[in-house]
Amino acid sequence: MELKNSKLVPFGSVCRSGSRASEDASLATLLASQTEYVCLFGKSWTDQARVALGISLKENLGIIDDSVAHLAAQGRKVIFDAEHYFDGWKADRDYALEALRTAEAAGAEYLVLCDTNGGSLPSEVDLAVREARSMFKAKIGIHAHNDSELAVANSLAAVEAGATMVQGTINGLGERCGNANLCSIIPALMLKMGKKTSVQDLSGLTSLANLIGEVANVLPDQRLPYVGTSAFVHKAGMHVSAVLKDPRTYEHVDPQLVGNARRILVSELAGTSNVIAKLRELGIDTEKDKGRSILEKLKELESKGYQFEAAEASFELMVRRLQGSSTPPFKLTGFRIFVDVSGDTMRSEASVRVVDPSGLVEHTASEGNGPVNALDKALRKALERFYPELRTIRLIDYKVRVIDARAATEATVRVLIRSTDGVMTWTTVGVSANIIEASLLALIDSLEFKLLKSPSGPASQGGVPLVNGGGK
Amino acid sequence: MELKNSKLVPFGSVCRSGSRASEDASLATLLASQTEYVCLFGKSWTDQARVALGISLKENLGIIDDSVAHLAAQGRKVIFDAEHYFDGWKADRDYALEALRTAEAAGAEYLVLCDTNGGSLPSEVDLAVREARSMFKAKIGIHAHNDSELAVANSLAAVEAGATMVQGTINGLGERCGNANLCSIIPALMLKMGKKTSVQDLSGLTSLANLIGEVANVLPDQRLPYVGTSAFVHKAGMHVSAVLKDPRTYEHVDPQLVGNARRILVSELAGTSNVIAKLRELGIDTEKDKGRSILEKLKELESKGYQFEAAEASFELMVRRLQGSSTPPFKLTGFRIFVDVSGDTMRSEASVRVVDPSGLVEHTASEGNGPVNALDKALRKALERFYPELRTIRLIDYKVRVIDARAATEATVRVLIRSTDGVMTWTTVGVSANIIEASLLALIDSLEFKLLKSPSGPASQGGVPLVNGGGK
Repeated sequence: MELKNSKLVPFGSVCRSGSRASEDASLATLLASQTEYVCLFGKSWTDQARVALGISLKENLGIIDDSVAHLAAQGRKVIFDAEHYFDGWKADRDYALEALRTAEAAGAEYLVLCDTNGGSLPSEVDLAVREARSMFKAKIGIHAHNDSELAVANSLAAVEAGATMVQGTINGLGERCGNANLCSIIPALMLKMGKKTSVQDLSGLTSLANLIGEVANVLPDQRLPYVGTSAFVHKAGMHVSAVLKDPRTYEHVDPQLVGNARRILVSELAGTSNVIAKLRELGIDTEKDKGRSILEKLKELESKGYQFEAAEASFELMVRRLQGSSTPPFKLTGFRIFVDVSGDTMRSEASVRVVDPSGLVEHTASEGNGPVNALDKALRKALERFYPELRTIRLIDYKVRVIDARAATEATVRVLIRSTDGVMTWTTVGVSANIIEASLLALIDSLEFKLLKSPSGPASQGGVPLVNGGGK
Repeated sequence: MELKNSKLVPFGSVCRSGSRASEDASLATLLASQTEYVCLFGKSWTDQARVALGISLKENLGIIDDSVAHLAAQGRKVIFDAEHYFDGWKADRDYALEALRTAEAAGAEYLVLCDTNGGSLPSEVDLAVREARSMFKAKIGIHAHNDSELAVANSLAAVEAGATMVQGTINGLGERCGNANLCSIIPALMLKMGKKTSVQDLSGLTSLANLIGEVANVLPDQRLPYVGTSAFVHKAGMHVSAVLKDPRTYEHVDPQLVGNARRILVSELAGTSNVIAKLRELGIDTEKDKGRSILEKLKELESKGYQFEAAEASFELMVRRLQGSSTPPFKLTGFRIFVDVSGDTMRSEASVRVVDPSGLVEHTASEGNGPVNALDKALRKALERFYPELRTIRLIDYKVRVIDARAATEATVRVLIRSTDGVMTWTTVGVSANIIEASLLALIDSLEFKLLKSPSGPASQGGVPLVNGGGK
């Protein structure tokens, strides 16, 4: 993978007490990852060295020195994360600074001050960063946690005081109350504080946040600043009319700058041109008219729980279906599922009835490991008669996301299926209150997408397979 | 109702352009509420007066003067909320200050600077509050929104700069990204900044946060600082051993001070001593021997895909089952599920057969929105005959996680169910390659946990309900 604006950095501890850096297995692994930068964390709080590690203050400095120097000698650029820096600094300022001095002298390029338990105030961060800036030539960084709901403020305070590296996560994911949320820090730096960052363009921020939410299978908080679906929502009548007169009244930044959109009931989203750009990316040529009707459909599907950020194959199929130029490659006209448990045995069986465009019917059945698997197997068995090329498909990922979790077992679920034929890989999505239907919709999209892209298949024939009377 | 530390304050706009304060219906309503204090909001940003209200700058000041003076003349103490203060101050500082001066001269006791669109930085808040403090005798307040994830930081910056009133909400509830979260501001002021507040005792903070969540019917974010269920959670072995040696390593404040508790997540990373510490937390007394056998079982279940970090109720049931002191409150001896789709209709039906400890059999069936929901409904229907107290249970969260996603539709899934009876809230887990079985296991644990904790139930009877021949 070629990274343009990013650098991959492995992260690990300084070597263990009693072992030499050159013989430490963990450091050897960091070196083996062959990256330009390596991030090493070590203690800078006297109590931590003495109590947690049970070593002398002098030995702790020796470990930092040996570890950083070893990596630097192997040509690595070293980022030194000083754990518990602010607590250490408050307890024994001289020793905390000595830990930084040791890392710098051993060759560290960055000294990162960590608020490991998330308890520091911006005023403390400001003081400590200013001091470190004035005392060291190495660049200064900040690593904040959100236990006081101040991780963003502490990161910004550090940058104002001269830090040039911010460690954080997308959506603030992380242990306890989370790490510093880059999705709030980056736009503040660029749009409010006039700072340059390694980010070139903020317009992908919202879809990045959604993608990471999907990948991590963590429901993104709707109220997340900048990227949340509620971040630019206006409801009360007075607010809406004020926002229409002057967006600055209730919008601190233009939502388009961060790839988000204003939401006022059902109204024009900023975006026909974005949809058209997206279609061009997929190789589909569309006039402005069509772009608008696709946007309408998109909004309708999103309100039902669909998300296409992580399921571009389903997005492309949706567009081709709207263009309505062809017949579907198959129709599922019915299916049945039967699960029976008594005593020690559980049986799951599915039967399906599939019709091809010429009217040929295949009615078949399969057992499986659970109802979704039985349905999956029965459907492929039926379709491979018409389309032998489907045999090459393997499903390589299956994700289930509960959308409105509070409805519990009646909740709407979103299923994402990732498939491969050994050459290309694609992801499809299905949404329903019934997990079997949601899985089936994603499964059908997966098979249909393969047929769309397969040279022997009905290449321009994207169409609507009827499931459950057009449940989609 | 007698309020001891709180004052009820009605909130409304200054009078409309063209009407006199003494004849304004909205002000009359505020007066009719007969409170000691009234909070009035008005414009302090030139653009807002001109564009949103469409009136002259002079008329806007006249409205502020007339409205505040009218309430003060009726004996009310007036809090004046200057809307969009920071935007106004950046656009036309003199006018923003003039709006405050007018309110003060008319008798306002508090001048509250509002960051209405949530876009201000702490450094800006600091400057503006210091200036207002130096120019006015009236007390200064802050009203922040969280659109930049800085509402807490801005509120604390204002207090450091001399503000003596903070407007906010419990759990940060509020439009868009929320208002300033008092549950993070109050403990920071009292525990970190040495300020006195109108709060006497913080130990009720966590239960207050939960109560407001229930009343507002908004699922409280587990990651909320101070009051969230994850705020003092520790997992990885290294973190747990460090926290046991010195809580300050990963706890910025003592969780008991805010009515929260440390939670040690049990996982295979943990050693026997952690398991025993965890059991003690749950009120289960166990010797070292038992601790080891529980750890063995834990590892076995984790290798199958179980995780108890987020499912403490299932962990407690697992331990009590291992102690094997009792009979299960019910046995599920079989179930069937039937899903049928043809044409437009989809039907999901489940039948279950349940036996209570005395041998009584209940055989019943239910339809549902999908197979899991049908099973859920049938099982409750059957069990409520034996245990009417199960009627109080509501499922408030249902999560599905695919574990080895690469096995696709045959993959193992982990289902987490969160339940409440209105008093306590608990989470249970089930794992299986069959999503229906996984859901069922979590559901059975949920019902059994309620019976375990219910005074009328079989309090010491935790036992193994047989599902699928001991699928667990």
